[in-house]
Amino acid sequence: MWRELSPIGRDRDSGGYRRYAWTGADADCRAWFRAQAESRGLTHEVDRNGNQWAWLGDPAGRDAVVTGSHLDSVPDGGAFDGPLGVVSAFAALDELRARGAEFSRPLAISNFVDEEGARFGLACVGSRLTAGRLTAEQAGRLTDADGVTLPQAMERAGHDPEAVGADPERLGRIAAFVELHVEQGRALAEGPHPVGVASAIWPHGRWRFDFRGEANHAGTTRLADRRDPMLTYAHTVLAAREHAAGTGALATFGKVAVDPNGVNAIASLVRGWLDSRAADEETLAELVGAVERSAAEHGAADGVGVEVTRESFTPVVEFAGGLRDRLAALLARLDAERGGPGSAGAGSRGPASYGAGGPGAVPILPTGAGHDAGVLSAAVPTAMLYVRNPTGVSHSPAEFATEDDCTAGVVALADVLEDLACR
Amino acid sequence: MWRELSPIGRDRDSGGYRRYAWTGADADCRAWFRAQAESRGLTHEVDRNGNQWAWLGDPAGRDAVVTGSHLDSVPDGGAFDGPLGVVSAFAALDELRARGAEFSRPLAISNFVDEEGARFGLACVGSRLTAGRLTAEQAGRLTDADGVTLPQAMERAGHDPEAVGADPERLGRIAAFVELHVEQGRALAEGPHPVGVASAIWPHGRWRFDFRGEANHAGTTRLADRRDPMLTYAHTVLAAREHAAGTGALATFGKVAVDPNGVNAIASLVRGWLDSRAADEETLAELVGAVERSAAEHGAADGVGVEVTRESFTPVVEFAGGLRDRLAALLARLDAERGGPGSAGAGSRGPASYGAGGPGAVPILPTGAGHDAGVLSAAVPTAMLYVRNPTGVSHSPAEFATEDDCTAGVVALADVLEDLACR
Repeated sequence: MWRELSPIGRDRDSGGYRRYAWTGADADCRAWFRAQAESRGLTHEVDRNGNQWAWLGDPAGRDAVVTGSHLDSVPDGGAFDGPLGVVSAFAALDELRARGAEFSRPLAISNFVDEEGARFGLACVGSRLTAGRLTAEQAGRLTDADGVTLPQAMERAGHDPEAVGADPERLGRIAAFVELHVEQGRALAEGPHPVGVASAIWPHGRWRFDFRGEANHAGTTRLADRRDPMLTYAHTVLAAREHAAGTGALATFGKVAVDPNGVNAIASLVRGWLDSRAADEETLAELVGAVERSAAEHGAADGVGVEVTRESFTPVVEFAGGLRDRLAALLARLDAERGGPGSAGAGSRGPASYGAGGPGAVPILPTGAGHDAGVLSAAVPTAMLYVRNPTGVSHSPAEFATEDDCTAGVVALADVLEDLACR
Repeated sequence: MWRELSPIGRDRDSGGYRRYAWTGADADCRAWFRAQAESRGLTHEVDRNGNQWAWLGDPAGRDAVVTGSHLDSVPDGGAFDGPLGVVSAFAALDELRARGAEFSRPLAISNFVDEEGARFGLACVGSRLTAGRLTAEQAGRLTDADGVTLPQAMERAGHDPEAVGADPERLGRIAAFVELHVEQGRALAEGPHPVGVASAIWPHGRWRFDFRGEANHAGTTRLADRRDPMLTYAHTVLAAREHAAGTGALATFGKVAVDPNGVNAIASLVRGWLDSRAADEETLAELVGAVERSAAEHGAADGVGVEVTRESFTPVVEFAGGLRDRLAALLARLDAERGGPGSAGAGSRGPASYGAGGPGAVPILPTGAGHDAGVLSAAVPTAMLYVRNPTGVSHSPAEFATEDDCTAGVVALADVLEDLACR
């Protein structure tokens, strides 16, 4: 399957993928999805919001089990973020058929459109629309860098933009959604387990820090007479890192804007954006509060005003506890029966091994990244599986998973689907 | 004089000046200069490079004494940087005539074109061309933001661009050049002296620091797995400040460029420009070396590569020692005779008082800023006078000098010109 998919939307220079929603590359990915569905005798369906579904059994049946991810990418993204979940879904179905599994419920494989938001600036558009967390009117205002609106882009790609909107009836027929995803960090890389189960998506937000000083001549203004906001910014960058390290959280200044941004001018304004995420909302609030206090203290010492604006905030997403525990227990039990890494040591890791670092233990991991699974979790019992990424890198061609680990992911997903859809 | 000059090129919104070389605002300033010259019976002359000269006595005579500055501005500049020196020159001539001074040498007032370099990106173009420190060919390649070349701009303003070039014959006829300038710092503001004498222009340079890390997902990459160049940049900003404070020098990071500069992306590249100046070249080299070492050490700890490129360097300018000492001694002697601030206390500062903080002492100040006087100092004995600026702010509408201090500057300049041109 990878062979047909991997050249689509790949940039020759960067080696990264540029598969943006409703573009030609995206259409090629969607055609690939449809061909995979039809070659397996599945019923292909595009919903009102452009998400693709491949059904085994009755598409209108109740208590369906769904698995899938997305095929679009960030600019110069890697091969695994998204596609691994879709490819693994088809492969898991093949594995279950090879096992002779008998399905007692409808099973679907899904490709959610525009998960990365690379083109229109908002992530998870397909799942947000379906879950009613983005209205058709809001979606109609989304515009790409060339001024093309989302409805225009949909229409040019052959999808009716008038149809978009919430789809509670569809979601009401789903008993469980499972998304498999390459890990976007190195938590699994340090252990023997190729596959882990998601516990939660951390609460996260963006805060804009405006540091206002006084523009002046860099060649004549004595240090004592300066009100240099770059100094306060620098202190705040380091304070954010320090407080994040102290609380096991994440804090990043990755975007800066400086005015007037001249080599021989002390800045009048430095604007820095803090992206921060933590295991719970209380920790996150404490972390951001500590960074704000540090900025204010250094600002007072530097003669620099500090103003903080929260630009966005997403509360914690706790994946369905019952489903999560069921998956973890299942994977641990099967791992123990088959002699996985926990029982037989890392040296014997084979295609069919996963989970169980100690007796019965499978890694249960939080993540800081948003996913369609996070969006759907409010409406549908939802779980995620992560596949080990030795580089830990994400949103870059350097993201990676070994063939053995990908196979372990497929087997784990097959086990989960068998447990959910065949009993 | 200020009344006619002050509205020219003033921006209604910012209150700052936008007088860029060879524009309409510049032409208005030049017309004002010519009118001032002609109303005093001076011979107005434009040299091959566009600099204006107003001559009392024979323009072709030898051993001329020249004073002046520039009328152009930085974007949203203040009213004093440049114009104070030109206005004070005309006022000093009026003062000398009121005193009944008899001139034994030709005296000229000059307006050097394009000192700030706001339009074509290079400072002191008029004086550089005249001093042969910029060739006609190099000047021909200068281009403004709209793609207009300097020769095109000159031609549109009615000046023959074919004429530009070095003018050693002209400079050879000048015995002394004195530039009066508003102080661009607060050294005088803390003492009783409204006027100081320049010692030197500090050596200065620009260094580009490239901090290269690894782009990654801000929401999923553990702190331990990051190679975040923003951290190394922040450490380096603070190290530069610390080393500058320790050596009495100046160091500023005022310009930054970040890649990819996304809120949820750890930066792959942070590029920061260091502007640094110090009293002597050895101190400057040591300072920059210390900042480079600090950057390299933190870079190693952060997993970030650091590359430093020197983009420009201007050696120290020592103003003519004999002329400087002559001016300082003269001002101190006259100050003592008249009962200036040093002898009568700050409370009695009047229009005619300046200099002499202790017995015979007039502040002798270095500066970090470039000037036409610095460019000309290699060819002509050159001195500068500074007028107190209570805000210390420069290149901004907040730059300022009181009317009393401006008058003290005029009197000091008149005394100096009388000493140089009338004995």
